Amino acid sequence: MSLNLKPLGNRIVVEPLEQEEKTSAGLYLPDTAKEKPQQGVVLAVGPGDRDEKGERIPMDVKVDDIVLFAKYAGTEVKIDGKKILIMRENDLLAIVEK
Amino acid sequence: MSLNLKPLGNRIVVEPLEQEEKTSAGLYLPDTAKEKPQQGVVLAVGPGDRDEKGERIPMDVKVDDIVLFAKYAGTEVKIDGKKILIMRENDLLAIVEK
Amino acid sequence: MSLNLKPLGNRIVVEPLEQEEKTSAGLYLPDTAKEKPQQGVVLAVGPGDRDEKGERIPMDVKVDDIVLFAKYAGTEVKIDGKKILIMRENDLLAIVEK
Amino acid sequence: MSLNLKPLGNRIVVEPLEQEEKTSAGLYLPDTAKEKPQQGVVLAVGPGDRDEKGERIPMDVKVDDIVLFAKYAGTEVKIDGKKILIMRENDLLAIVEK
Amino acid sequence: MSLNLKPLGNRIVVEPLEQEEKTSAGLYLPDTAKEKPQQGVVLAVGPGDRDEKGERIPMDVKVDDIVLFAKYAGTEVKIDGKKILIMRENDLLAIVEK
Amino acid sequence: MSLNLKPLGNRIVVEPLEQEEKTSAGLYLPDTAKEKPQQGVVLAVGPGDRDEKGERIPMDVKVDDIVLFAKYAGTEVKIDGKKILIMRENDLLAIVEK
Amino acid sequence: MSLNLKPLGNRIVVEPLEQEEKTSAGLYLPDTAKEKPQQGVVLAVGPGDRDEKGERIPMDVKVDDIVLFAKYAGTEVKIDGKKILIMRENDLLAIVEK
Repeated sequence: MSLNLKPLGNRIVVEPLEQEEKTSAGLYLPDTAKEKPQQGVVLAVGPGDRDEKGERIPMDVKVDDIVLFAKYAGTEVKIDGKKILIMRENDLLAIVEK
Repeated sequence: MSLNLKPLGNRIVVEPLEQEEKTSAGLYLPDTAKEKPQQGVVLAVGPGDRDEKGERIPMDVKVDDIVLFAKYAGTEVKIDGKKILIMRENDLLAIVEK
Repeated sequence: MSLNLKPLGNRIVVEPLEQEEKTSAGLYLPDTAKEKPQQGVVLAVGPGDRDEKGERIPMDVKVDDIVLFAKYAGTEVKIDGKKILIMRENDLLAIVEK
Repeated sequence: MSLNLKPLGNRIVVEPLEQEEKTSAGLYLPDTAKEKPQQGVVLAVGPGDRDEKGERIPMDVKVDDIVLFAKYAGTEVKIDGKKILIMRENDLLAIVEK
Repeated sequence: MSLNLKPLGNRIVVEPLEQEEKTSAGLYLPDTAKEKPQQGVVLAVGPGDRDEKGERIPMDVKVDDIVLFAKYAGTEVKIDGKKILIMRENDLLAIVEK
Repeated sequence: MSLNLKPLGNRIVVEPLEQEEKTSAGLYLPDTAKEKPQQGVVLAVGPGDRDEKGERIPMDVKVDDIVLFAKYAGTEVKIDGKKILIMRENDLLAIVEK
Repeated sequence: MSLNLKPLGNRIVVEPLEQEEKTSAGLYLPDTAKEKPQQGVVLAVGPGDRDEKGERIPMDVKVDDIVLFAKYAGTEVKIDGKKILIMRENDLLAIVEK
């Protein structure tokens, strides 16, 4: 999938991972989360928000990170038939280490 | 279309793109977004908000950028029969690269 | 109409323009906005809000500017039989250039 | 009426003017505002709020100013049978010039 | 009444004055305020809130001041059979001068 | 009761005092507060919140202080059969002097 | 349990302790908290939030701390069949000392 989205501010583009896929971290999401995935891979990272002096605050995630995020976080967009999410970095809960 | 609007603060003027138009980025918007477009072209860009010292914070988008924005973002205005939207830059999610 | 109102802070006094009047910018407002005008002419401009050091933040609009503003913005007052609105500058969306 | 109230912070004491009185500015208030006056004369002015360094922010109105304020602004108190209002300066919309 | 309360932050301890008592300022409270008094005498004053550098912001009222406060302001406590109120200084509207 | 809780931030641990116990300050709480005590003794004090530079803001109460707090303030925890409350210092109204 | 989660910002990963387990601190949680545990062990700690200059604010808890947290705090995730919670440090009430 060639990605053509450049997220703004502290936003990131995430491709949700299907719940059935067990990650190398052995992580499963609880049954109550079945409708919406809570795990995904980072496809693109924004330049970061600006602090009160107008300077960029560095982002803590990078492309290819596996991340956990709260249910219903982000806005859904479809690219080449795949659903992706655009959300703010502070909607992310944790990075799943590989 | 000659545009005569000069947006204030961190506002931008966006002309929504019809969902049927496939952009060069191969981007489609999901079915649930049919009523309101989520993609548009930037027609005008405000001077930016002022930080707490009264200086302008630079804008991250420019005229002719293709942008994604949240459903229901912005205020609708009609110019020469075309619907345009005026919204704040932080209502924008991402720039669609060409 | 002689105006005798001196707006406080970042407030401005706006005389709404009738929707039927087409401005020189060829701007029309959508049908859904019929009850309340969204376009007006600036009659008076406040001195600006104070920043956290107590200094005035300069205003971005001036008397005679044609402005767009959100529906229901401002407080209605009647002067010599005409309805005017007093609103804050950040309720303004854009300046309509002549 | 001898006034014995010293307002605190950025508060002011206002005596509402009856709607029937046409001011020298030829200002009338709209019919929908009949129940509560929106115009008054300033009887007393507080010392101003403190900024984040603890210094006073100067007030923009002074005793005897005729002011416009939003409906329902302020707290009603009765002195010698007259109703007066105590409100914050930012509840004021404009000064009516004489 | 010996007072044993030391208010914290910008709080003050106020003993409400009965509405029937006309103060030396000739001040009456409106009928709609009958259930809860809006006037009282200051019994104790806290050390003041801290500003963002951790320094105390000075209080504007002192013990024995007669003050006006908004209905329902503060928390009721009973000392030796008397009802007193503990409230924040910014719940006070004005000092009634003697 | 040996206490094993170290409160975080500006939190304190308070053991509520029964309403029947008259304190040395002769303080009674009003009847409407019967269900939940509003008076207690401080068992532990957190290190204080951090100001915007990351430094600790000193706490105004210390262990063994008798304090008044708003009804429903804090979170209930049971230690060795006794109910204690963990609350933030700004939920405290006053110190009852002994 | 090998943990593979790296929490972001001021988030921590907590494994809730069953209410039946009496900790060495002799701490019991009240009956009204039966549905959701309020006590847990810290499995992982984020790098801390950034202050307004972009520097990290140090965390006050560390791995293996026993902590108390408000009911319903955090987001549930399941790892190897165990339920864990990801929450922000300011959802924590206190550290239970061993």
